[in-house]
Amino acid sequence: MTKFKPISGEKFTKIIDFLTENNIDFLMINNSEETRSPNMQYLTGHPQDATAFVTQKGETYLLPWDISLANKYAVVDEIFDVQNFDKSYMKFLQYFLSEKIKKNKATVGVPSSYSFGSYLMFKNHAPQLEFFTEPQKVSNLLGDLRTTKSPQELDFLREAANIGNKTIPEIEKFALNATDETENDLSILVRKKMIDMGAIDVAFDALVGNTNRSHNIHCYPLASTEKFALPGLALIDYGANYEGYRSDITVPISFGELNDKQKEIRELTRKAYDAAIAILEVGVPLWKVHEAAVNEIEKAGHNMPHSLGHGIGLATHDAPYVSAKPKDPMSLQYWKEVKAENGMVFTIEPGVYVEGEGGQRLENDVIIWNDKVEVITKSRFITVP
Amino acid sequence: MTKFKPISGEKFTKIIDFLTENNIDFLMINNSEETRSPNMQYLTGHPQDATAFVTQKGETYLLPWDISLANKYAVVDEIFDVQNFDKSYMKFLQYFLSEKIKKNKATVGVPSSYSFGSYLMFKNHAPQLEFFTEPQKVSNLLGDLRTTKSPQELDFLREAANIGNKTIPEIEKFALNATDETENDLSILVRKKMIDMGAIDVAFDALVGNTNRSHNIHCYPLASTEKFALPGLALIDYGANYEGYRSDITVPISFGELNDKQKEIRELTRKAYDAAIAILEVGVPLWKVHEAAVNEIEKAGHNMPHSLGHGIGLATHDAPYVSAKPKDPMSLQYWKEVKAENGMVFTIEPGVYVEGEGGQRLENDVIIWNDKVEVITKSRFITVP
Repeated sequence: MTKFKPISGEKFTKIIDFLTENNIDFLMINNSEETRSPNMQYLTGHPQDATAFVTQKGETYLLPWDISLANKYAVVDEIFDVQNFDKSYMKFLQYFLSEKIKKNKATVGVPSSYSFGSYLMFKNHAPQLEFFTEPQKVSNLLGDLRTTKSPQELDFLREAANIGNKTIPEIEKFALNATDETENDLSILVRKKMIDMGAIDVAFDALVGNTNRSHNIHCYPLASTEKFALPGLALIDYGANYEGYRSDITVPISFGELNDKQKEIRELTRKAYDAAIAILEVGVPLWKVHEAAVNEIEKAGHNMPHSLGHGIGLATHDAPYVSAKPKDPMSLQYWKEVKAENGMVFTIEPGVYVEGEGGQRLENDVIIWNDKVEVITKSRFITVP
Repeated sequence: MTKFKPISGEKFTKIIDFLTENNIDFLMINNSEETRSPNMQYLTGHPQDATAFVTQKGETYLLPWDISLANKYAVVDEIFDVQNFDKSYMKFLQYFLSEKIKKNKATVGVPSSYSFGSYLMFKNHAPQLEFFTEPQKVSNLLGDLRTTKSPQELDFLREAANIGNKTIPEIEKFALNATDETENDLSILVRKKMIDMGAIDVAFDALVGNTNRSHNIHCYPLASTEKFALPGLALIDYGANYEGYRSDITVPISFGELNDKQKEIRELTRKAYDAAIAILEVGVPLWKVHEAAVNEIEKAGHNMPHSLGHGIGLATHDAPYVSAKPKDPMSLQYWKEVKAENGMVFTIEPGVYVEGEGGQRLENDVIIWNDKVEVITKSRFITVP
């Protein structure tokens, strides 16, 4: 695969409309170690560090870190080399304003994650730039666009899920036969299997928790030298990256006889998962799906310390978010209800965690398409006697 | 290893002094998927997502995502559970201001990477919070503190380097014997070897580029299904994570007879590396070390599209930065000359990249200690006939 710009023409038009309505001359999107964002690849096809510019006139420009990679992947009107601007971002910006925007004073839109420090630096020293003061609207717009996937994106996501699915029997085999094998062994096995099946990478380094570590939401370190097959509750959270698109799967595993508390953790996780899947259909607000799962857990006196799910796309954590409706007035003001609709792909991953007893999380990926909910990954509770 | 707070008491005092001098009531440091920062682990020992608060009175508080992990790792005065604040960050903040800061209106300091969106949200809706308007000073302060490592940190960094070093003969063996083996095979081999030698993780997923891909600064995908041992220039960039501390090594490898351009790429990389090492000593400004390497490359008509090096610590890219002195007045104003001094650990990694011919980068890690420069990793040019 070489050039592929995920955003559709129709969706791109919505950006132009937004810029026009809000008198924003151009969007400036960063992707760097400091601020990772799937927006870069989504808007330009470029998979790496760069600054992208989308103008109100509908032009897209890229100032990448690696020119050669940009030439290979980016679908933009022009790629600039900072080497030609004396390696100065500021010099490039002056050129860009005068030659491309053709204004001495321009309004720039940035997403919410833009750095406070950069904002102040430009505010204090680049009077020709004015910042649009509702960056949350920019983030929401781009998030909204990424929330529903195109048929091509869905194909990639299905293949990522498929690779993840074919890994589950390998995990089961490992669990059934493990004696001294470590969490690290399982992590490397899963990585190797997915690469062998055509993943360009893992979606993220697998989180592997044996009974001593499964009570952590995301264990630290991600995998360890401890034996995996210790009696009790264990889990592995992993996924494939297929052409940039991800899957995200958690397989809950039990070893040996469980005590009553451990049985309850398992049973509650199952109930929460079933409740979420039962309520999920086109048109349902996603916060209600979160709530359905959480209710099962809370009425048993436990809590769920994380959101029920998240979109999957060019990032493992993409829009939409399957999380609680905020309670405080400030957060509510920035919140928007999102309802399940065709083209969405997200995880459902309830979990119950009790220090001393362990944790369980069951995570599958769902696609909403043709007004139907389809669970595209096949995680299930694995029981090793 | 369980609890370890990297920052020394002496350095912590400098934070308090800074807060006092600038009338800042408390620092607020985020570590989240949106903004990764080694400051969290450095200031609190907590290795994961959280918000940390350091008050002018010298107290440290933590609002972690995973309470149990915080209980295990964090060295702070108090850990708070957002569950006890109705899962509302805002509610927690109100409690924190009234009970811990004991002020109705307080000035908060955040680093430069703080999100513009969060700043505006609080500015518009939380009049009790005032933001210190020089976040770059906060970032610079924390970066300065992290720039020099304590003896304990140096021990960890030496062990990370050591694990990386013991991997070099494995890479050489792989290269010498490789026929159909892929870039992915080498990536997985290196990961496995480092984990076996006691790394808690890789420092980062290895970048493996054969002759078709080595001209990219950071190849995409990081490793591929292509054969590694193709005639020409290849490289692997990898490192170990030992107890949170990293090494970062790039081994340049050639396969078969090189053409003149490829020989020049190799030779220039070597010259640039030698020039940097030759000039490096205590008291030398780091931008001059960068310049010494770049000069070698530029006088041969090439350019180096990245900085010469970066500090290594709890993040693979830590302070200090071995990069060019900025040219434009705005960036210069935010820039500070940093000179080589005892306790610094950073990479020296010149590279030359030519599409169609390939690239080479030689990267080693250096420690400055007892007024001497010590190259602690042992990367070298590997030649496969």
